Amino acid sequence: MTHELLDAAVGQATARPVVPAAGVRRGAGAGEVRLDGGFWGDLQGANARASLRHCLTWMERLGWLANFDRVAEGATGAERPGWQFSDSEVYKLMEALAWEYGRTGDADADGLLEELTARVARAQDADGYLNTCFGHAGQRPRYSDLESGHELYCTGHLLQAAVAVHRTGAPGGLVPIARRAADEVCRTFGAGAREGICGHPEIEVGLAELGRALDEPRYLEQARLFVERRGRGLLAPIALLSPAYFQDDVPVREADAWRGHAVRALYLTAAAVDVAVDTGDAELLAAVERQWERSVGRRTYITGGMGSRHQDEGFGEDWELPPDRAYCETCAGVASVMVSWRLYLATGDVRYADLVERTFYNVVATSPRSDGRAFFYANPLQQRVAGTDVLEDAENARAEGGVRAPWFDVSCCPTNVARTLATWHTYAAAVEGDTVSLLQYAAGEVDVELPGGDRVVLRVTTGYPVDGDVAVEVVSAPDRPLTLRLRVPHWASGAVLDTADGTSAVEPGWADVPDVVAGRRVTLRLPVEPRFTWPDPRIDAVRGCVAVERGPVVLCLESTDLPAGVGLDDVRLDAGVEPVTDGDGARVRVRATPAVESPFPYGGRPAVATAGDAHDVRMVPYHQWAEREPSTMRVFVPTLPAS
Amino acid sequence: MTHELLDAAVGQATARPVVPAAGVRRGAGAGEVRLDGGFWGDLQGANARASLRHCLTWMERLGWLANFDRVAEGATGAERPGWQFSDSEVYKLMEALAWEYGRTGDADADGLLEELTARVARAQDADGYLNTCFGHAGQRPRYSDLESGHELYCTGHLLQAAVAVHRTGAPGGLVPIARRAADEVCRTFGAGAREGICGHPEIEVGLAELGRALDEPRYLEQARLFVERRGRGLLAPIALLSPAYFQDDVPVREADAWRGHAVRALYLTAAAVDVAVDTGDAELLAAVERQWERSVGRRTYITGGMGSRHQDEGFGEDWELPPDRAYCETCAGVASVMVSWRLYLATGDVRYADLVERTFYNVVATSPRSDGRAFFYANPLQQRVAGTDVLEDAENARAEGGVRAPWFDVSCCPTNVARTLATWHTYAAAVEGDTVSLLQYAAGEVDVELPGGDRVVLRVTTGYPVDGDVAVEVVSAPDRPLTLRLRVPHWASGAVLDTADGTSAVEPGWADVPDVVAGRRVTLRLPVEPRFTWPDPRIDAVRGCVAVERGPVVLCLESTDLPAGVGLDDVRLDAGVEPVTDGDGARVRVRATPAVESPFPYGGRPAVATAGDAHDVRMVPYHQWAEREPSTMRVFVPTLPAS
Repeated sequence: MTHELLDAAVGQATARPVVPAAGVRRGAGAGEVRLDGGFWGDLQGANARASLRHCLTWMERLGWLANFDRVAEGATGAERPGWQFSDSEVYKLMEALAWEYGRTGDADADGLLEELTARVARAQDADGYLNTCFGHAGQRPRYSDLESGHELYCTGHLLQAAVAVHRTGAPGGLVPIARRAADEVCRTFGAGAREGICGHPEIEVGLAELGRALDEPRYLEQARLFVERRGRGLLAPIALLSPAYFQDDVPVREADAWRGHAVRALYLTAAAVDVAVDTGDAELLAAVERQWERSVGRRTYITGGMGSRHQDEGFGEDWELPPDRAYCETCAGVASVMVSWRLYLATGDVRYADLVERTFYNVVATSPRSDGRAFFYANPLQQRVAGTDVLEDAENARAEGGVRAPWFDVSCCPTNVARTLATWHTYAAAVEGDTVSLLQYAAGEVDVELPGGDRVVLRVTTGYPVDGDVAVEVVSAPDRPLTLRLRVPHWASGAVLDTADGTSAVEPGWADVPDVVAGRRVTLRLPVEPRFTWPDPRIDAVRGCVAVERGPVVLCLESTDLPAGVGLDDVRLDAGVEPVTDGDGARVRVRATPAVESPFPYGGRPAVATAGDAHDVRMVPYHQWAEREPSTMRVFVPTLPAS
Repeated sequence: MTHELLDAAVGQATARPVVPAAGVRRGAGAGEVRLDGGFWGDLQGANARASLRHCLTWMERLGWLANFDRVAEGATGAERPGWQFSDSEVYKLMEALAWEYGRTGDADADGLLEELTARVARAQDADGYLNTCFGHAGQRPRYSDLESGHELYCTGHLLQAAVAVHRTGAPGGLVPIARRAADEVCRTFGAGAREGICGHPEIEVGLAELGRALDEPRYLEQARLFVERRGRGLLAPIALLSPAYFQDDVPVREADAWRGHAVRALYLTAAAVDVAVDTGDAELLAAVERQWERSVGRRTYITGGMGSRHQDEGFGEDWELPPDRAYCETCAGVASVMVSWRLYLATGDVRYADLVERTFYNVVATSPRSDGRAFFYANPLQQRVAGTDVLEDAENARAEGGVRAPWFDVSCCPTNVARTLATWHTYAAAVEGDTVSLLQYAAGEVDVELPGGDRVVLRVTTGYPVDGDVAVEVVSAPDRPLTLRLRVPHWASGAVLDTADGTSAVEPGWADVPDVVAGRRVTLRLPVEPRFTWPDPRIDAVRGCVAVERGPVVLCLESTDLPAGVGLDDVRLDAGVEPVTDGDGARVRVRATPAVESPFPYGGRPAVATAGDAHDVRMVPYHQWAEREPSTMRVFVPTLPAS
């Protein structure tokens, strides 16, 4: 192996989604962490075995792939299958395939990627423009509907796919295609050219990351322009939606909170971090941190889910967090991880890694059915009426049902889950000088390169999150003192660390183990026993309720687990009885008293339901809900009045 | 005056919106009740003085009236101002003008109605079809989009306007126009012709009532066909909305609850009652009563408001009643009155009149600003962020803001309020054999004709709803024993009746005073002092909260009435201190303890806010909210934990 090839191999092992041009820490590479099954290993396995092919099959069947062929063959017209943004699903699948190649070198992924790349390549116009919905015979002109057209949005996903291909060395040749597309965008929308932005942010993160990958500063500059142009009313309002819907109401650096369509808001914010970091724009970074603090503190669900409103798939006002109408789009969970991950890399603040964990377990992991062939689009925290069967052979309405669906009319979530699961392990560890940080806990091997080129190999043994003990053994390390940094989640009061020096209490935050050398073994013991979690009293919609969490996992009460004849609406949780561990869930004490029927539901003070029969019932991980059968479900359970 | 003309005058005095072909009771005529100012008299005055002209001015300005001229002049094209349903606003204004004529003989209304009728008449096609959006040069063909086109919906409002003209004798000649339009509908959609229905019900009530007014059974039969066809999947789903959106999921006689778009559901239901009554269809009537019971018992706000969801302006599931995102469209309030009024006429059940009162005071009266020149479209029960200024010179988005707006992009509510206020007094009294019922209380004179032709004149003296005493004096009556029936509202526990025989307790329901003769005087004393009202414990969104009502009026707490430095989110009501009367509102005891800020709003049990400063604050009638300034507001206020 020549030196050049060796370098390439090392580069591919460290391939990862986000590589800021500045900063002292980096995430693990796709080839630097190997999971031994476990929670995330199983999800990655189902993703690789089932979800990738599943997405491909649906997109072929619905004609979203053939759209590229029709452009190549000059056979376009006014009629075209799929929404205007369907190209992006193809690109997100290609990105997932590339990351899967980076994770495993999977040969099947390999063949698919080459085939898809060839079909996409044939649809690219001579000047680099690449879109199957605009700009060809019978179609509307290019960039004639920036508000709704999603052309730049689609291109952004193309660029992200190309970044994955470039960094992992996946085959197919997507990078030059993406480069030509990016160049066309820069020519059309660069400084002095058209002062436009896309109704749906995404081009910005795509350009920033492709610029990093290819060392092309023009792309970062174009991303910066798009970010800075936003919030100045460049987009015409769509029907009854306000400019806040696409964040065109307030410039990014002036906003106090996320608002409007959640995925749009979060993709834009991720790009703002990229721009801030790479250009050294401390003011912009501070603005994003301020927005994170307000929005996570007042506009985020206990699951990490974001988006309180169905109407615009958007954020609500502060404290507007209804559990039953929670939208919590799966894609917003993916986007929230993108934002918090970037903020962690930029600042090293543990709270960003905390939110990444919460969102992974309770939003991203909730979407796919365990077989990887059906998904939740919305992730409400309460289901009032058990779902009915979904359409197995047709597209389902996006947010309805209470049952995971194979495919959606707007089907952004399955491919977003796929590309995210394929990279989960790259968020599990980070390197900062001679410090190796473990951010997410899973059994497996971490084999990372330090800045100087030395390697550290760690073996992690754990049954997390069901079991709270995380044992870390230093298998090999350079012959100098290193630091092992362990994340103690914000909920982990009472955590302890066992080292050769004995047992010591560790507070939530970072637990640094200094002077780590090969052969050293430490065990972090996190209290994952179930606990009650109360909402801020200003969250009106769950007043008088409590949730139960078990480690990082939010639990829920499903009708499936209630005794016969007991309805979920009639259950009151006895918060005087602590929850106890029951497998990966918990057992809690409830009382069930059917409410008295009344012809009008407002009147005198209702009888207090303290006298009902007591039952000890099981609460299960929220991410498993509706896996056994369609059910009614609650994350927040009303409590008995304090006695 | 000839006998024929005398008959006509009598007929005009008894003019009223709903005249079932069968049944033992009837509502008061527009000329049979005269209000002496007071709550509803003032609203009727502002409506007559300001709102009618206001609506006309906006519709002229926006070109909705000129659309009729363009059809008449053959000047139509693809571009047309207004939504596809803007014709209906013109018809609702005409209906309001006709009822206003019936109420007062107002000469100004008279002139307007003739002018509008002439412009509408010129737009009617030779075969009776009348619509400015379809069927002419440059427009889509007639009935080519039954799902969204609203053609039959508009025609329904034309027919309702014609009913008002016919019964009140208002000038302009609208009746033959409506008859030709109705005939065209019957030819096109009758038995054996096209089996279609309109995406938005309304043609059904229009046809049924015009059939009653003109004694034309074909129109009732067509209404029956439209009602029966619904719920069988005749309409193609619109985008992401389910068939339940336009009640095409389940046949009317099989449904258990109202669902989907609230106004659509309620207009359809009103027509179902009309059909059931006139055809003697007891099964259909029972189905509607069952739906009322479930939907009022589980899907209705304390205000009487209906529609829990912004997304589809629709009903939610049972117990899904969020105060902040309550839609409670003003038009749904109007439609709810239409339904309950018909059910009262059909059954005599007092609960229907109770809901009419609740909805009048707390939805219909809430919409118009006191000057009659601005309106609420949605009527939420909680405002989290004070509204900002509305557009005075342009159309406002429909449901946003927290401030009444002069006009809306979709502006169905102002004209619906106008036509309803103009008829308020016709819902105040009813006649059933020799029984005269007072259903709504207001100072004024009731002069009604009994079935045999004799007249009864009552003088009502009251400051209701601020004062609970309602004195009724029989001014004149035929020389035989009559019954005076007084409604004791469902909230009026402890009501008493003073008669010549002394004072007696009366229970909620009907209080019958027998053997009433001229000169008799009775006083009903209703307990309108403020009271706490608790929600059913299954309404998750207001758990741990209480509302305050004062007689039929729901009160609210506005930020305007809080001491400086006290935020509405931080207030807890002390339910141990009974509310006391304060003008037309109430004074309650609250404690204010700012919540502790937290970086993530879920964690340990928050401190209980019992220790904050006590304040006695005023709660004002909900229908007055945001009249003084943009405010934050709550109907349901969180309570202190029971001590």
